[in-house]
Amino acid sequence: MASSWILTALLFLFVVVSPLLALSKRDPERERQERQCKSECERSREREREVRQCKQECEERYRRQKGQGRNIEERERESESESEGRRRGVTGNPYAFERDRFVRDISTEHGSFRTLPPFTERSELFRGIENNRICIMELKPNAFVLPHHKDADIIYYVANGDARLVTIGEERQDSHNLKKGDTATIPAGKTTYIINKDSQRELKIVALLQTISTPGQYEIFFGATGQNPPSYLRAFSDEILEASFNVDRSRLSRLLEQKGQGPIVRPSSEQLQGLIHGGSGGGKWPFGESEESERPFNLFSRRPRISNDHGELYELDETEYSPLREFDIAISFANISRGSLEVPFYNSRATEIYVILEGRARIEMACPHVSGGREQEGSRRGQGEQEGSRRGQREQEGSRREQEQEERGKGQGQEIKYHKIRSDLNPEDLFVAPPSHPIAIRASQEENLQIICFEINARRNRKYFLAGKNSILNQIERAAKEVSFNVPSREAEEVLRAQSDSVFVVGPRQQREGREGEGRAVA
Amino acid sequence: MASSWILTALLFLFVVVSPLLALSKRDPERERQERQCKSECERSREREREVRQCKQECEERYRRQKGQGRNIEERERESESESEGRRRGVTGNPYAFERDRFVRDISTEHGSFRTLPPFTERSELFRGIENNRICIMELKPNAFVLPHHKDADIIYYVANGDARLVTIGEERQDSHNLKKGDTATIPAGKTTYIINKDSQRELKIVALLQTISTPGQYEIFFGATGQNPPSYLRAFSDEILEASFNVDRSRLSRLLEQKGQGPIVRPSSEQLQGLIHGGSGGGKWPFGESEESERPFNLFSRRPRISNDHGELYELDETEYSPLREFDIAISFANISRGSLEVPFYNSRATEIYVILEGRARIEMACPHVSGGREQEGSRRGQGEQEGSRRGQREQEGSRREQEQEERGKGQGQEIKYHKIRSDLNPEDLFVAPPSHPIAIRASQEENLQIICFEINARRNRKYFLAGKNSILNQIERAAKEVSFNVPSREAEEVLRAQSDSVFVVGPRQQREGREGEGRAVA
Amino acid sequence: MASSWILTALLFLFVVVSPLLALSKRDPERERQERQCKSECERSREREREVRQCKQECEERYRRQKGQGRNIEERERESESESEGRRRGVTGNPYAFERDRFVRDISTEHGSFRTLPPFTERSELFRGIENNRICIMELKPNAFVLPHHKDADIIYYVANGDARLVTIGEERQDSHNLKKGDTATIPAGKTTYIINKDSQRELKIVALLQTISTPGQYEIFFGATGQNPPSYLRAFSDEILEASFNVDRSRLSRLLEQKGQGPIVRPSSEQLQGLIHGGSGGGKWPFGESEESERPFNLFSRRPRISNDHGELYELDETEYSPLREFDIAISFANISRGSLEVPFYNSRATEIYVILEGRARIEMACPHVSGGREQEGSRRGQGEQEGSRRGQREQEGSRREQEQEERGKGQGQEIKYHKIRSDLNPEDLFVAPPSHPIAIRASQEENLQIICFEINARRNRKYFLAGKNSILNQIERAAKEVSFNVPSREAEEVLRAQSDSVFVVGPRQQREGREGEGRAVA
Repeated sequence: MASSWILTALLFLFVVVSPLLALSKRDPERERQERQCKSECERSREREREVRQCKQECEERYRRQKGQGRNIEERERESESESEGRRRGVTGNPYAFERDRFVRDISTEHGSFRTLPPFTERSELFRGIENNRICIMELKPNAFVLPHHKDADIIYYVANGDARLVTIGEERQDSHNLKKGDTATIPAGKTTYIINKDSQRELKIVALLQTISTPGQYEIFFGATGQNPPSYLRAFSDEILEASFNVDRSRLSRLLEQKGQGPIVRPSSEQLQGLIHGGSGGGKWPFGESEESERPFNLFSRRPRISNDHGELYELDETEYSPLREFDIAISFANISRGSLEVPFYNSRATEIYVILEGRARIEMACPHVSGGREQEGSRRGQGEQEGSRRGQREQEGSRREQEQEERGKGQGQEIKYHKIRSDLNPEDLFVAPPSHPIAIRASQEENLQIICFEINARRNRKYFLAGKNSILNQIERAAKEVSFNVPSREAEEVLRAQSDSVFVVGPRQQREGREGEGRAVA
Repeated sequence: MASSWILTALLFLFVVVSPLLALSKRDPERERQERQCKSECERSREREREVRQCKQECEERYRRQKGQGRNIEERERESESESEGRRRGVTGNPYAFERDRFVRDISTEHGSFRTLPPFTERSELFRGIENNRICIMELKPNAFVLPHHKDADIIYYVANGDARLVTIGEERQDSHNLKKGDTATIPAGKTTYIINKDSQRELKIVALLQTISTPGQYEIFFGATGQNPPSYLRAFSDEILEASFNVDRSRLSRLLEQKGQGPIVRPSSEQLQGLIHGGSGGGKWPFGESEESERPFNLFSRRPRISNDHGELYELDETEYSPLREFDIAISFANISRGSLEVPFYNSRATEIYVILEGRARIEMACPHVSGGREQEGSRRGQGEQEGSRRGQREQEGSRREQEQEERGKGQGQEIKYHKIRSDLNPEDLFVAPPSHPIAIRASQEENLQIICFEINARRNRKYFLAGKNSILNQIERAAKEVSFNVPSREAEEVLRAQSDSVFVVGPRQQREGREGEGRAVA
Repeated sequence: MASSWILTALLFLFVVVSPLLALSKRDPERERQERQCKSECERSREREREVRQCKQECEERYRRQKGQGRNIEERERESESESEGRRRGVTGNPYAFERDRFVRDISTEHGSFRTLPPFTERSELFRGIENNRICIMELKPNAFVLPHHKDADIIYYVANGDARLVTIGEERQDSHNLKKGDTATIPAGKTTYIINKDSQRELKIVALLQTISTPGQYEIFFGATGQNPPSYLRAFSDEILEASFNVDRSRLSRLLEQKGQGPIVRPSSEQLQGLIHGGSGGGKWPFGESEESERPFNLFSRRPRISNDHGELYELDETEYSPLREFDIAISFANISRGSLEVPFYNSRATEIYVILEGRARIEMACPHVSGGREQEGSRRGQGEQEGSRRGQREQEGSRREQEQEERGKGQGQEIKYHKIRSDLNPEDLFVAPPSHPIAIRASQEENLQIICFEINARRNRKYFLAGKNSILNQIERAAKEVSFNVPSREAEEVLRAQSDSVFVVGPRQQREGREGEGRAVA
């Protein structure tokens, strides 16, 4: 009988203590990781809004993991190959952003504003561009965006369509027609509205926003509306509004209590006439010419800087379009013929944000990390080795660091290594190329590739090509070539001079994308 | 007997294990929150000095909470209503700073320097102005501030009094008289001293400091003193001092070991003459004219930019006073007649820091958050819904986020919402208005309201008014008004044009402050 | 029998529960500290690479501590006195960096690049200079650095030797001869190579790098090489390389698969001729004159700004050498005669980075902290009281803060205090002097002292001397002197005017370094 009690006691012990044990034994490492994961969420201070979500993801990640009893490495390896199977290249590195990363700020049946989360949310590598955000605006035929302003400076690039943009100043409005290739700038705080003039086609605008207040954060403000979207006037008390507008409450209510149809609407055909052709009402009449500096500039109004059978490159910088000066931005547009290639090059100072407009691109980039060489350079792992998640990077860095230290112990210095970054990109996917990183862009065999590129920190930027007639490698003196390549200089020069085209060249002749291995070394 | 042992064992179990259980059960969430609270303390790297205190506050908060067995939400709701009862509006949002938030850097019986802690300590929203600090200097009649320099650029605005300011250069001194309305700038590192010339009245100076070294941090350096305040020379070894000054230790000691009377003193009447009228001794004699750029500029020496029966607005920017250029600051002074109102407006680029000088103000501001609409827009919660504590914000954001996701799941985009920020402010209270945020300022019925405003990032800033004759909403074209407000354009225009004054207008006619509900919607 | 069961149960309890208890009892404080330590690692976001190591150090620190059962304070006190015994002054404060803090980026038998870790890794105090890194390059006689570029702007100062530097542009190369005293700038992304022309002497270059992408981080890119160092071209796929260079794989392989001899090599004597004298091959021939702005500028080509028996000061700023403009940097070189002293002075805006080139220096600096006076100002603790570790600082700050609050409770304001920073520095040691901090530099009795100084944020910087003929303290008016020093003005003036030399003066006459106490007060 006693022993039955004892058994009960032991059972109790087991029931009570073992979970505790489990808690203390199983958790420390996992908890540490979860804590670290969350603490990384918090480190990124500018995104107050996303911290919570980020932490939830941490929790989910470790909760799932707990249940499955597998370690993170396993899970990551798996998700890597999943993603490889699903869509090769894009998820495997921190520089490529798939279009589904965009978040819908505004979305109605008539159109949407979609914004990419702050770059620093992806990686601290992007701290240098944290003030910059990318946004895509799409409007259905004849859709109208209600008057609003943002606390960010904006550069529009019109990818498609035909629109009228009105900007409201204290004493005047300005009206601009926008068509494909137009670049326009809107200073922070400027109230604007926009109408898709075309009754058939969508309007698509790719915008770069530079935040001016909290770095990386911006907000949108609607005023001339009622409840949907709410007018910012609704945030004021009745008494303030009555006194400000010198009307009584009931008349204000008629205005500010209207239900509304949302921030993007389709006006009646009568209203459309007024919106498309402007004119009557509102501002001083006739309203003036817009200042030259505020007029849109069409990227295709000048000759391309580079043009041959394999591609064209259009560029616009502050020397040609002064509004870009305040942004320190240049804009370029590349049209690469199907099957063709933009040879490897790098930018000296600018970080480039490429947005695919049409066609499919493969981008390859060399990404330096001074590391201890845990991975065989030129190994077959290739594409997957850039894990996008920060934790992954850290871990990698960590184990590299360990080996570095051994290395350094031998007085060797840190090992130099360039990771292979490789991304296959579709329309509305993004790629960010940091300065000095060599990059090559290749169009698919099926269609021409159109890319718009925002160059951040464009002033004093130089583009250096590494192959083709204007390759800087060719400028190296003969003796230096010989010592550097460690082959007779004649041999090096023959290779470096074999390409007689520049910038855009014939691409790889056969379509090998399907069958070639990832990260195959040059051998 | 056996069972008594067993009972003992079970008792033991209970005694030993249950606290453990409690530890594991009660703590996780609380510990997590406390950890998060502390980790937020640490995130803000620039305030090494405050991190510890911040963490102590975290500990206290969660310790108290533990004892009381109430959850944070309960506590916060309580403290909210407490603060509402005590002083409405000011504690309820991150943009208002009560005067008791100032910390005494220096304080003697003859005067004080009080400084507001770095803005980023309050909220990461203020990262864009983290280099800016606000300081108030008050000197009793005839008080004298010993020579010192700071590692920050300084803008003085003289709110009251009559002073002589001396700045020490390598080859000259400059002497400036300061009176009410004067603005003066002092570059970082410049040694200065200041005397309240008036034997009856206090001197009050409101200063903006821009830090130049560690962002948001500055220090004060006294040199020509002995022990109180200590001279920075005391940090050097005897041998260095002897060699530097070419005198022996005993004579140096006579100087640097003087007890002193503190950093702010009241000189003898004989000394006063020398300090007030300058002249003999010290610098080269006669000492020169100050460079024009360094002379103070009186804000009231020009006509106000705006002036009517209800108020006046004086402004000073870099085009009128070149020393402001390096700061990218403009200064404005608003005098709003009692019972009057400055109609809603926003700044396009500048963050404005308002310091109340005289009278009482009610400031209302619309604060956008793209959110999932947990709270009913226009609900009665109003004022309290902006919890100043970051944790509170996070939590709110978090639950909004959850709902957003549902929302987005339906393809709706995020919901737009403008919180009602409302603050009642007294002299020396501060209000920070970020760019693009609509704001209205109202004087109390009892007295005129005087506000000094530092506009940070003033270059290219525009002020847009939303009501009154120069309202930008009036500039919207007729068709656009109709679509936006969703009422016949005639109706919208009648409301928007009813106010024939601009900027400053007749305020709400009855004093309703006492009886009106908070956050009452327009209806 | 029953009781034996019970004993077993209790034994079990003991075995199972006591570790749990121990876990919960022993750990919390230590774990908290470890967590805090790690979390501080994470706060510093720009150094993804170092975070892991930093955390390992945290773990080690607390692991060791656990084993030893001593508290951290004990350990630190110990290590303090160890370091004092080993090498006085340098380890005791955050401003001095011993030469062994440099990390080897690259190291072969023919030379090395050594870089100091980002300053913010040492302390958040250095956030204002986080974009700046210091690097030392040393090349053995006739050593050659293979062509490479960095994603950072670079300023070279040639400390010793004779070199040829070639920079590669798109259409031209430029070749520069470098000798002792030369300053040259290399813009980010510019491909360069360099050869030590001298067959006997080492080449030593001290470089300041300003990062342009991720703050504080830069990378090195080699292109014209094979496997060692790897060429960034190896990161591209075969097909891209074949198409880009228009050659087939086998010929590329010949180039890119060469084993190589490392990033710094010693060329054959035939190759040396080509590298030293330039000329044949590679670039367009003859290649042009370098642009004036890119030519090196010799610091000694102008007269020293200050020169007397005790020392010389050479200065170079953007008005004399325009390439410095983009850096906002000035460079100065001080040669202080043995036994002499540069009297106390401070910079108004610039942070100065001193690198000792020859001789030994003692630097003393006054470091302000508004504090609660836990430590007796002028106490004998002196030198050790600036604990380099951040945790140490925090703790100090914390306890100061506690006392401040008491102090403030009495309405006294915060106490002003200047810590004594004192460092003995050898060649290649660094010292960072923040703006406004008074500093004095003294050469040892044995040899002249040569220091190169990079002034960061040099624009509008002024240097104010506190002793000697041009002391600003002398510019203070007589009455102000009297009130400030609290002695008759005649007495103050006698002391302040006793030194008839300026800037460089006779140093302390006896060599007291060995026997004098640390932090002895002036008394």
